[in-house]
Amino acid sequence: MRTMRTIYWDKSTNQVKTIDQRALPGRVEWVTLKTGEEVAAAIQQMIIRGAPAIGVAGAYGMALAAFQYEAMSSTKIEAKILETGKILQAARPTAVNLRWAIDRMKKVVFSNASSPEDLNILLLAEAEKIAEEDIQTNSRIAEHGIGIIEDGDVIIHHCNTGSLATVEGGTALGVIKQAWKQGKRLKVLVDETRPLFQGSRLTAWELQQEGIPYEIITDSAAGFFLERKLASKVMFGADRVAANGDVANKVGSYMLALAAHANQIPVYSVFPFTSVDASCRIGSAIEIEFRAGSEILDVKVNEKKIAPRGAKAINPAFDITPNHLITAWITDEGIIYPPFKVSARVVLGEE
Amino acid sequence: MRTMRTIYWDKSTNQVKTIDQRALPGRVEWVTLKTGEEVAAAIQQMIIRGAPAIGVAGAYGMALAAFQYEAMSSTKIEAKILETGKILQAARPTAVNLRWAIDRMKKVVFSNASSPEDLNILLLAEAEKIAEEDIQTNSRIAEHGIGIIEDGDVIIHHCNTGSLATVEGGTALGVIKQAWKQGKRLKVLVDETRPLFQGSRLTAWELQQEGIPYEIITDSAAGFFLERKLASKVMFGADRVAANGDVANKVGSYMLALAAHANQIPVYSVFPFTSVDASCRIGSAIEIEFRAGSEILDVKVNEKKIAPRGAKAINPAFDITPNHLITAWITDEGIIYPPFKVSARVVLGEE
Repeated sequence: MRTMRTIYWDKSTNQVKTIDQRALPGRVEWVTLKTGEEVAAAIQQMIIRGAPAIGVAGAYGMALAAFQYEAMSSTKIEAKILETGKILQAARPTAVNLRWAIDRMKKVVFSNASSPEDLNILLLAEAEKIAEEDIQTNSRIAEHGIGIIEDGDVIIHHCNTGSLATVEGGTALGVIKQAWKQGKRLKVLVDETRPLFQGSRLTAWELQQEGIPYEIITDSAAGFFLERKLASKVMFGADRVAANGDVANKVGSYMLALAAHANQIPVYSVFPFTSVDASCRIGSAIEIEFRAGSEILDVKVNEKKIAPRGAKAINPAFDITPNHLITAWITDEGIIYPPFKVSARVVLGEE
Repeated sequence: MRTMRTIYWDKSTNQVKTIDQRALPGRVEWVTLKTGEEVAAAIQQMIIRGAPAIGVAGAYGMALAAFQYEAMSSTKIEAKILETGKILQAARPTAVNLRWAIDRMKKVVFSNASSPEDLNILLLAEAEKIAEEDIQTNSRIAEHGIGIIEDGDVIIHHCNTGSLATVEGGTALGVIKQAWKQGKRLKVLVDETRPLFQGSRLTAWELQQEGIPYEIITDSAAGFFLERKLASKVMFGADRVAANGDVANKVGSYMLALAAHANQIPVYSVFPFTSVDASCRIGSAIEIEFRAGSEILDVKVNEKKIAPRGAKAINPAFDITPNHLITAWITDEGIIYPPFKVSARVVLGEE
């Protein structure tokens, strides 16, 4: 089967269509986003998530603004688009791809000297280019990453890094899928990924679609499997990577990497190079988004709520895995072994 | 307020009453257990849980058998009681307190030379003694442990080790409660403790009863708080402690201890000395109970199941925290600093 596309621009209506990830795994439900603000809200509400996917969503959001305000004067429309960029950027402070994509769209706005009608077209073209690049990027990540997967691997995977986290293909899960397609036997231990269950809801669903063997585990059981050598690799994505290779990713990645490291199991962070934020020298400089405590508390087991009335929860959505816990960084520009250097990219001649 | 008692023998009916921990935090619901088999089922179904509490439940279960079969001949009743002991012991293989309590009850059976009517009385008396000892043990644990709690502490606590995990008082949570009563300011970060949410359901509820400040966190967020030094201590109980101080406890304890250790935050395992299994030289010799995957999968968010149809989960209920990650073991016989030695007890003259 061809991997599904998570988000696209509907040319007939000039609207954005995206899978509502909150409805999974029960239903594949598509949502239509008509304005930049709606895209920002969709990111905030986790309708769309995953650093690469929200980068593309941000770009589409700015293109939507250009269509939304096309009747305005050139100066006004530019101001509106830039304002929309700010709203979009605030929707998820930790993932850097969002900022990166918005910056690219802003460059188009700034460099455009022609009429507002053209700006629509230019911004949409740039957004489509960013989306297309993401698909290509994921292919290159998979090509590079596949070499590290060994026949018989049992891979603990955190959060969701599949097609749903990108436009199409996925990062860490993209590598796993590609290895499976090439006939490598493997199994995935799917961290359920509290509080929003991206593992059980999304990763399990994607693996099931592909027929890849998997079992769901609680996040805190990973240590048990690592200590008993019942897992051979740990893989996750990245929401932002500091210049020294520290990785901001879904909360729980840090404890998982610690447990793997303590048991000499390799840890791979897999991401497009656009997730690297060279302006962040070290991981602790990365802003961590705190989300509503209700994400933790609004869970029912046997129709019963899991916390007493009035209970409070504190909910950091990301954590930082320091570079020394990471065996290698798998990117579209190749596999980087320690020490991580942003200049790896320069060496490869793409900057 | 006086701490509630979790389990007791109802003298008017010769039945066992226990709080149904599955109904918490919504309702305090009492369950009546009439036979040893019902006690075993209650342990298996997590109606009653916590190593010390299930030890006492096991003792009561054997006393129930003595009442249940009192019409039989002396030889037959003894066989029935011992058979019940086996059923009880199989209900939770990891916690050693259950085996320990059953062994004590078996000694009474073996040493009893008088009539079956007397055996009822003797076994009930022994069970009541075990229950009373648990309460006293917890008082001593709290007395010893209180010295490690500092004013202003923020303690990450895993699973439930409170009154609900014991007959009354608690182990790790008992120490915390006692410190709070003595006026120490503190806050508890409550690990929700997947898959059964003993943290959010039981520990949060107990802390709320006492007015102790707390916030619930996901298990995998503990690393974030430890790395940022937003927590000053880690505390949990023990289901079984090997002769070298390795601690088998609720799954997740190991990753929590790793994260604390990596950030120089002290880790305390708190338990009655009856949780020590001198016959287990090291932690890896301790049998780990695997429970049904449905415990992980049967969760709903917004009325939606969190995993795709047909998803499988693998659910180890415990893990092993190696002794080198533990700062001190807090027991009823004092605080033990490394190296852990079973002979600490002998030194104290109680063996």
